[in-house]
Amino acid sequence: MTDTPETGSDQEPRRGMSRRALLTGGAAGAGIGAILGLGSAAGFTALRPNPGSAVPSDDGSIRSAGAGGDLPGFGGEALPCHGAHQAGITTPSTAHARYVAYRLRPEVDADGVRRLFRILTEDIEGLASGAAPLADPEPELAARPSRLSVTVGVGAGLVDRVDPSRRPEWLKPLPAFAEDRLDDRYGDGDLLILLQADDPLPLAHAARMIHRDLTGFAEHHWTQQGFRQARGSEADGTTMRNLMGQVDGTVNPHPDEEDFDPLVWIGADGGWMSGGTALVLRRIRMELDTWDQIDRPGREITIGRTLDDGAPLTGGDEHTPIDFEATTPLGLKVIPMAAHARRAHSTDPDERIFRRAVNYDDGTEAGLLFACYQRDPYRQFVPIQQRLDEMDMLNEWVTHTGSAVFAMLPGFAAGETLGASLTG
Amino acid sequence: MTDTPETGSDQEPRRGMSRRALLTGGAAGAGIGAILGLGSAAGFTALRPNPGSAVPSDDGSIRSAGAGGDLPGFGGEALPCHGAHQAGITTPSTAHARYVAYRLRPEVDADGVRRLFRILTEDIEGLASGAAPLADPEPELAARPSRLSVTVGVGAGLVDRVDPSRRPEWLKPLPAFAEDRLDDRYGDGDLLILLQADDPLPLAHAARMIHRDLTGFAEHHWTQQGFRQARGSEADGTTMRNLMGQVDGTVNPHPDEEDFDPLVWIGADGGWMSGGTALVLRRIRMELDTWDQIDRPGREITIGRTLDDGAPLTGGDEHTPIDFEATTPLGLKVIPMAAHARRAHSTDPDERIFRRAVNYDDGTEAGLLFACYQRDPYRQFVPIQQRLDEMDMLNEWVTHTGSAVFAMLPGFAAGETLGASLTG
Repeated sequence: MTDTPETGSDQEPRRGMSRRALLTGGAAGAGIGAILGLGSAAGFTALRPNPGSAVPSDDGSIRSAGAGGDLPGFGGEALPCHGAHQAGITTPSTAHARYVAYRLRPEVDADGVRRLFRILTEDIEGLASGAAPLADPEPELAARPSRLSVTVGVGAGLVDRVDPSRRPEWLKPLPAFAEDRLDDRYGDGDLLILLQADDPLPLAHAARMIHRDLTGFAEHHWTQQGFRQARGSEADGTTMRNLMGQVDGTVNPHPDEEDFDPLVWIGADGGWMSGGTALVLRRIRMELDTWDQIDRPGREITIGRTLDDGAPLTGGDEHTPIDFEATTPLGLKVIPMAAHARRAHSTDPDERIFRRAVNYDDGTEAGLLFACYQRDPYRQFVPIQQRLDEMDMLNEWVTHTGSAVFAMLPGFAAGETLGASLTG
Repeated sequence: MTDTPETGSDQEPRRGMSRRALLTGGAAGAGIGAILGLGSAAGFTALRPNPGSAVPSDDGSIRSAGAGGDLPGFGGEALPCHGAHQAGITTPSTAHARYVAYRLRPEVDADGVRRLFRILTEDIEGLASGAAPLADPEPELAARPSRLSVTVGVGAGLVDRVDPSRRPEWLKPLPAFAEDRLDDRYGDGDLLILLQADDPLPLAHAARMIHRDLTGFAEHHWTQQGFRQARGSEADGTTMRNLMGQVDGTVNPHPDEEDFDPLVWIGADGGWMSGGTALVLRRIRMELDTWDQIDRPGREITIGRTLDDGAPLTGGDEHTPIDFEATTPLGLKVIPMAAHARRAHSTDPDERIFRRAVNYDDGTEAGLLFACYQRDPYRQFVPIQQRLDEMDMLNEWVTHTGSAVFAMLPGFAAGETLGASLTG
């Protein structure tokens, strides 16, 4: 019964019908289709009582794959969702991102998780391609995916429903950091749906389609939304700016580099997680009012980079390596010992992470949704964050208010089901 | 004293300084500038103790106007903010919009309102042009305005501070509609700042700069954010779609039409509001879960238009006028008597409004931020909404949860101050 929503929602249309019949002057109980003489095709029927069974729409109007791809604009661009890894991790960063966490309903067992993954697979294939899932009632909102990706992660709670012995050691809340001020609203969950696209409209639609299909399996836990510069507003490849005005994300392993895979993708020894990766998501609130009261050199020294173009204070351009040994005429370090760039810098090449952040601003609070991917958060993110937590000039103006860890599932090929390595 | 924030915020940097000095090993009380031997230019100084006085940054790094305009991408595009009318009303719709309402602090009098308008004028000129207001600490976030507009409206409370006798008759809460379920969180305010841009980053920055400068005058009341399709995702001029999947906003007076001005802009007999307009903002929640359970013909009949391209059910394309007289073979109206398009349609040409909506989706609730402009809400919006409130098939799936009315100030020329016709 886990894939059949038993909420009151399927009662609503019936109530609605009689009210609508009343409004249009129809006899009690008569549907609008009957009133208009259009026959049953125009009657109000529950389109899809079972979200698990992808059935064609009953009017044959569903668009074929790429229907929106021939029109002008980037809306028609679709990212492949199939591959050794899920899309949305190393694929190009998009303008908008939404993280949605769910808690599994108590009755969902291993078999329920299997069905859930099957539904997600169909939804992702339909939404990412622009073809729309078969039962999508608004295919026009899906037809222009604008590089939509849907990336799925799982928490310890979901793995436990399948087999607790398969839970990775690192899949648990991070250790407490002294400077953290965590809000439970943004804690871990059983399931994470990460949606990214260049257009907020198909993204919102995709989130809703998936939410609807998950209703029988899981309850919404939290949503966090963020943005980067709009697509097309800057030259391609421009590094994002955060709301403090900093160029953010310059130093980052690149997927084309030889040492990227062992840093980020879990290898063959990772069992069911082979081809997956560990996500750490931190909600970092920025104290922009006080940050703005610091003069420009002070803000640049706090980071170790210029605000203008993100170049190190030791010279060069944005991509010039920082010279951590450079000194002032008085013999002091140009990059102070507590500067953010120095404290974040790892001398151990295995202690690196792949970052992917977006800004957030809900009108009352602003900051960064900091996401990073790695093989093992305890060997990669945690030591970096321990250094920052211990000493970082930037801590005066940033506070970590949310923390979550998810196992991002391995990729899947056409004909395969997402998460099959876990559920068998 | 209304233009000098007296909050604890200007204490923060001093606390921060000693902590930072400690972190970098400096002697108690020594600033980082002194430690690094950079002289006072690199010390931490409060950049702008008085938000009312636009002073140049003390490091000379503020960009000149249009500094971001030479780079690739649409980010450098700036909309003129000067004219007979404020920008952001008939200027092209942008991808993102944010409405922010404020309540004036009790001590703000007519003179305070005058100073507030002077500050807003400088901020708008700097932000819209990309030059950044003179004291903007993050000019890089302002340099790429992406058609940013900032449009200012006032509520009855603000007019009363200046002169209650100048309050327009219509500047008050709308009459109650039976189907309304209003949430006070989205009610009227004394001051409205509407920000629109194609890129959420300069928009967020502009909102923050203005918020900072308003701190001494007003308290934040509410924020509502929305979006349309991303710029560049569709062909230019594509009508927006709302989250129900409908093409939304097809029938709308066009600023080039002869009868537009008398519908929208308050005329010479409007006193200080001449050249301004009345905004009605309604937050309309959509019940998407039940909407999706209605089959496609049922949804199309509810509106009176196709979901595919927004054409009337009586034929043609999106821009073909609806034939309200057309009948089915059985003699019934093709567009039902209670269809949304019929109920919203005015037979009185003076009873029209200029619409400008955006979608909203905060992760737990989705809908439309419906905005319309007109000379007089009581002669234009109210009769339309009374018809819809009384009978509209769509009411089953939409609920008005927020309602606000603001007097959108007349435009201003270079060298003039926004709102001068009110404050003298």
